[in-house]
Amino acid sequence: MSINAGIGTQVPTLRLAGLPGFPEIKPGDDLAALVVRGVRRAGLDVTVGDVFVITQKIVSKAEGRLARLDTIEPSAIARQWSTASGKDPRVVELVLREAVRIVRMDRGVLIAETRHGFVCANAGVDTSNVPDGWAALLPEDPDASARRIRDGLSAGFGCAVAVIVADTFGRAWREGQTNVAIGLAGLSPILDYRGQTDPHGHRLQATAIAVADELAAAAELVMGKTRGVPVAVVTGAADLGLVIGDGSARELRRRPEEDLFR
Amino acid sequence: MSINAGIGTQVPTLRLAGLPGFPEIKPGDDLAALVVRGVRRAGLDVTVGDVFVITQKIVSKAEGRLARLDTIEPSAIARQWSTASGKDPRVVELVLREAVRIVRMDRGVLIAETRHGFVCANAGVDTSNVPDGWAALLPEDPDASARRIRDGLSAGFGCAVAVIVADTFGRAWREGQTNVAIGLAGLSPILDYRGQTDPHGHRLQATAIAVADELAAAAELVMGKTRGVPVAVVTGAADLGLVIGDGSARELRRRPEEDLFR
Repeated sequence: MSINAGIGTQVPTLRLAGLPGFPEIKPGDDLAALVVRGVRRAGLDVTVGDVFVITQKIVSKAEGRLARLDTIEPSAIARQWSTASGKDPRVVELVLREAVRIVRMDRGVLIAETRHGFVCANAGVDTSNVPDGWAALLPEDPDASARRIRDGLSAGFGCAVAVIVADTFGRAWREGQTNVAIGLAGLSPILDYRGQTDPHGHRLQATAIAVADELAAAAELVMGKTRGVPVAVVTGAADLGLVIGDGSARELRRRPEEDLFR
Repeated sequence: MSINAGIGTQVPTLRLAGLPGFPEIKPGDDLAALVVRGVRRAGLDVTVGDVFVITQKIVSKAEGRLARLDTIEPSAIARQWSTASGKDPRVVELVLREAVRIVRMDRGVLIAETRHGFVCANAGVDTSNVPDGWAALLPEDPDASARRIRDGLSAGFGCAVAVIVADTFGRAWREGQTNVAIGLAGLSPILDYRGQTDPHGHRLQATAIAVADELAAAAELVMGKTRGVPVAVVTGAADLGLVIGDGSARELRRRPEEDLFR
């Protein structure tokens, strides 16, 4: 992908709006239809290349990716880790079932690789923003989820938009969590500057920006965690050259052979 | 810190604007004065609580944190790693001088802890967007840099604003880099939701959002790497409850005893 924006005096801008007033999402709900309704209710205009960032939690709920804790029988290791970490043994059992590899299991923290290849705490299983007695799992195929929602939104608005399914992940070395992209449709997740020249005429050698993660992070700022705002609309990203191609969030996974922190 | 925003139908919004047309920054330049001029030139309004995200590179340049490569004598280990990584041995020497601890040195990648306690590639030393034959080092004290610029901006605009000094860091497990906060003034870097309740009435147990990193990431989207836009203004963050307190980017460093990826 190429970045055409040169050095000029134009003011690059980006606008983010959160969509409030969503109902509690149930399995089978049509998220695209609810988002279209939310956009109309908020009085927002949607144009080609707008990016919709949707929190993983409502995608999982719409897809029925919820587990009822009282149906879960914890294994011996789940009970052990429950004692060590203070977490519900049934939630730990779900974490172990969702994980394909344990990266760290120490000091109360369980970092795991999910079946999608993402590395995150508790394999993405969590109990926040779900009804009591349930836990939410990550969507089976978050890119496919994003594509379905994108198709519905593009049809609903009559123009091609992009979708990012976002979840909140912790990081190595840094405190606090940020939103990242776990699924996407209608854009490439990485803007690769390698081989391009900076204003000093140097070729950039290592710069490849995870724009999908930056868009997800930006969207979190308007969504928040207690505001009941599960969707954000980003306007202006296409004019900034950020909505190019049609990639997969899988491109954001570091390959095992290049991962120094396995 | 408390988050007062309840569930409602108000549309939460955030606006980002990049400031183009900056001159090449030289040691001793008054960044706050240049930013005030850039804001006026762009025709932007500034209000209390606006957040200015400033790329580390121009802060380092203004503070004279540049090294002329032909004055650097590479040590034996720097020459060894230069051969292994293909990097200029004088740049490697600077990396080793800026580092207080090597986290990984493998497969051409050198991850180091800086004197500030940040973990990043090459201890933050880099040669992009600097004149030929020079390398940029991180500011000595990025929080102090942010405070100085914040004081200048608050005086220039006649209202209290916040400042984030941002750099582009890679991550464990994920491809691509994102902008993060390495210095700040006028806000707390982490919005701690622990003990608050979600819309289902659950107490959030682990959620603490690194809002300064999310603001830095959002700002990168309007700044880009080849556009010559080193500063972004974020409007609306205060209304979202994101500009609270007066912290330090040091709060974003995970403590060694809690860091599973040392």
